[in-house]
Amino acid sequence: MKKRVPFVKGHGTQNDFVLLPDPDGLLLPDLDAATVRRLTDRHTGLAADGVIRVVRSAALDEDADLLADAEWFMDYRNADGSVAEMCGNGVRVMARYLWSAGLAHGRELPIGTRGGLRLVHAESDLLYTVDMGRPEAMPTSGAVRVTARSAVFEAVAIRAPNPHAVVFVDDLGLVGPLVEAPALEPPSVFPDGANVEFVENQGGSHIALRVWERGVGETRSCGTGVCAAAWATMRRDGSLPGSSYTVDVPGGRLVVTERDDGTLLLTGPAELGVAGEIDLDQL
Amino acid sequence: MKKRVPFVKGHGTQNDFVLLPDPDGLLLPDLDAATVRRLTDRHTGLAADGVIRVVRSAALDEDADLLADAEWFMDYRNADGSVAEMCGNGVRVMARYLWSAGLAHGRELPIGTRGGLRLVHAESDLLYTVDMGRPEAMPTSGAVRVTARSAVFEAVAIRAPNPHAVVFVDDLGLVGPLVEAPALEPPSVFPDGANVEFVENQGGSHIALRVWERGVGETRSCGTGVCAAAWATMRRDGSLPGSSYTVDVPGGRLVVTERDDGTLLLTGPAELGVAGEIDLDQL
Repeated sequence: MKKRVPFVKGHGTQNDFVLLPDPDGLLLPDLDAATVRRLTDRHTGLAADGVIRVVRSAALDEDADLLADAEWFMDYRNADGSVAEMCGNGVRVMARYLWSAGLAHGRELPIGTRGGLRLVHAESDLLYTVDMGRPEAMPTSGAVRVTARSAVFEAVAIRAPNPHAVVFVDDLGLVGPLVEAPALEPPSVFPDGANVEFVENQGGSHIALRVWERGVGETRSCGTGVCAAAWATMRRDGSLPGSSYTVDVPGGRLVVTERDDGTLLLTGPAELGVAGEIDLDQL
Repeated sequence: MKKRVPFVKGHGTQNDFVLLPDPDGLLLPDLDAATVRRLTDRHTGLAADGVIRVVRSAALDEDADLLADAEWFMDYRNADGSVAEMCGNGVRVMARYLWSAGLAHGRELPIGTRGGLRLVHAESDLLYTVDMGRPEAMPTSGAVRVTARSAVFEAVAIRAPNPHAVVFVDDLGLVGPLVEAPALEPPSVFPDGANVEFVENQGGSHIALRVWERGVGETRSCGTGVCAAAWATMRRDGSLPGSSYTVDVPGGRLVVTERDDGTLLLTGPAELGVAGEIDLDQL
């Protein structure tokens, strides 16, 4: 007898996911890295940036601090099978799934993640807002530099909470396709590497960016990268709390709003795609 | 009650497909373009270059000429939903599926396609050979030119049987990423456009290529493009019938052999991936 589990594809600004609904934690209690890699493979799998196991907090053995006050937990894995804390695009997709499947009600949905509790708010059927915490400048002594395709750029180092190097450029089109990891200097600032965002002003409170994700490559969208870039732009502009910035990424459009307490809200689409069942033991 | 149909993912040199096994033609007799687009979508679907409905010839209403002498028919659709004649990578993947599923036996498997009967030979569990017919030079008056990223190249115009422009270059690395369709001149040679192959000699009977597929963009592999490029190289080299050329594409390696009658054999891998069932009416 084949072991089949349900799946749903989904994406937020083309950051795409395989959702594995496992409400009571009985189907995939031991989701291993090899299975994640098989499911996400771009050619032999279902093609995704990551896997989101949708599971009730009560079914988990994880640290109780992570699970407080949320019925549902986002068990997120990167495409390479590694466990990840949180994903700003994925959590909106998971929320939309829970609402669509009738597993959640109302317009506010707390979701537990390894990065802490996240509150998702449904603005409409198409737009969802999630709190993303408070980025901070990383301590640096002297200039931080990014080298991409032989060009050297000055960067701002930000923790959001993963490390980012934000580069302001006059023309995104002049930043060629990013096929190799940009070099970061000095290495002491980013001992574990960083995501790199190239940001172009679009006038007003509107920016466009392209992002290199460490360990992945150039991607269509990155939730924390969008927040880091918007936060750096807000600091540069001297904007007041309450300001909202529109951020265009290759995969779509997001809006970042800074609250009075300095935390950021990320608003953007969440789309559900095909659904079905997948044979685990044929993988 | 949801309508669920089985699916299998597969690829040949990263040219990837959703296989829809429909042996008796009862599941998807009227597979429409919208369903194909939903299934192949890179973010909301199963992510593929095309759909292969695997169906018995006897279950089809198609022209009897197409169905002669083959139990199985490759009902191939491009990702945009349009009907296609044949796919040199897809037909190997379909053959591997039929053998793996116990639906075919022996080492030779004729498969009907809209481009005619194709005979697939299993060299091993990993390598499959398919006859690809005989390319021919297209009649041209004067030089054929390709312009890509502002650089102008001389090209050879080939029908295989779809139209191709083959460009020999000294260094593939100097052909930047192809993000826009190369321009073709004179327009009269390619009234419907063409695929463009950039070919670099690797020494001996070995070439490497990158390909722009019309209506798609730069892809990881293209079976007819590989055949057109190998055929043009054989003519340039004055090679004898029976010669085999190794062709590296971004997605892997293929071998093209010219038979005494001038027809080409394409040998390469075929991989099967995840399998399961997909909900048609949730799409």
